[in-house]
Amino acid sequence: MLTAGQLDRIEIVLVKPRNPLNIGAAARAMANFGFSHLSVVAPYEPHWREAQSAVGAESLLQNAKSAESPAEATEDCTLVIGTGTLVHRKAEQPVVALPDLGGRVASELDRGGRVALVFGSEKRGLTRDDFACCHLLAVIPTHPQQPSMNLGQAVAVCLYELAARAGAPVLLGPENPDQHPATSGELDRLAGVIDDVMLACRYSPDEMREANRHDLRLLLRRLALNETDARRALGVFRRILHKLKH
Amino acid sequence: MLTAGQLDRIEIVLVKPRNPLNIGAAARAMANFGFSHLSVVAPYEPHWREAQSAVGAESLLQNAKSAESPAEATEDCTLVIGTGTLVHRKAEQPVVALPDLGGRVASELDRGGRVALVFGSEKRGLTRDDFACCHLLAVIPTHPQQPSMNLGQAVAVCLYELAARAGAPVLLGPENPDQHPATSGELDRLAGVIDDVMLACRYSPDEMREANRHDLRLLLRRLALNETDARRALGVFRRILHKLKH
Repeated sequence: MLTAGQLDRIEIVLVKPRNPLNIGAAARAMANFGFSHLSVVAPYEPHWREAQSAVGAESLLQNAKSAESPAEATEDCTLVIGTGTLVHRKAEQPVVALPDLGGRVASELDRGGRVALVFGSEKRGLTRDDFACCHLLAVIPTHPQQPSMNLGQAVAVCLYELAARAGAPVLLGPENPDQHPATSGELDRLAGVIDDVMLACRYSPDEMREANRHDLRLLLRRLALNETDARRALGVFRRILHKLKH
Repeated sequence: MLTAGQLDRIEIVLVKPRNPLNIGAAARAMANFGFSHLSVVAPYEPHWREAQSAVGAESLLQNAKSAESPAEATEDCTLVIGTGTLVHRKAEQPVVALPDLGGRVASELDRGGRVALVFGSEKRGLTRDDFACCHLLAVIPTHPQQPSMNLGQAVAVCLYELAARAGAPVLLGPENPDQHPATSGELDRLAGVIDDVMLACRYSPDEMREANRHDLRLLLRRLALNETDARRALGVFRRILHKLKH
């Protein structure tokens, strides 16, 4: 996981985007994953800063830089990474699969560098000229039959990889911190009442009773009931037993 | 990386999506990452199958299933994973961070299961009721100040994680090689009969019935019942119900 200080040294660059909704979607994904520096190079639509799709990222879009070329947008960066697929292209730079990009980016930031991640236009992606300012080509491993991603989705996937995926696990806490597992005694009390219920409703012939009881004990242990589960189940089966007998 | 055969046993479920463009975007991301089974539950717009955003995924969208409820959409699945954030919610299920989800899904597929990944509506995500059919909650580790993702982008990020990111599947070995996990539909049938039994023996006051039903659905999923367990339990409770009524 990259720190906020590291994320602050990453630029997201969109080259010649056609649809302002995609620019807004890219901005939204940036806010989702903690990025803040967007540059837009030669956009097709002049009013892209008003894109409605930049939910929660309105100020990020307002503060985005405009640039004339990818070279201008990335001039302060020490590692420029172009994104794309290899389907219609022979790479001239080293190629890194997106899942392996995190480590490369982290070491560049660790040594004080500044990183740019560059995305091409919706229709054609980055041109050979655009790639000329890139140190690396990062490839999203999409399906060969349908490699081309929507721009906003491609940005989201790359930022997820860099910000959330790379490195440290997210601590979400124990599954049920306040729940103790049921004790063996509690399970056996429960098994006893269930056994009585099965008998009272003539679930199985007498000669099967021992086998059923055995299976029930195994089952109750396999289920990993907690204290509350066991107490509730006991309540339900006691209630059933009472009703069956009266 | 999941195989094509494994990807074929994963269902993507969109619950009450409002904007057909997002449905199309989800379909496009599915095609990008090699998924093919989409279910749409109670969509807001009737003409969603024509969504222009499903670039390269037109037939996937045409073949998508319609369902009335998340329970119906996932009834053949053995592991149902809801997606969301923990920002406005206290989880009732085990929580897995998205980067850790791949291994869990791979082992379920390895033991012959069928997996559903469920996404809520744009505005509110999944409701507490929707979550009642989920075994797990998968959380995309977004920034606390801007946690809410665009639906199409959230789908893309999750599918990237499962299809492209998840390294070699973790082989944990099945716990019971000859046992298939119970499907969501089997668990719901069981829950229905238990609910009838609780009613027939007047286990709890009427006003508690909804809450009990909800807890029961959660409990049955947490217990990881296999097919045989579910069938046996169903037999026992049917027998009880019959006896209580006669």
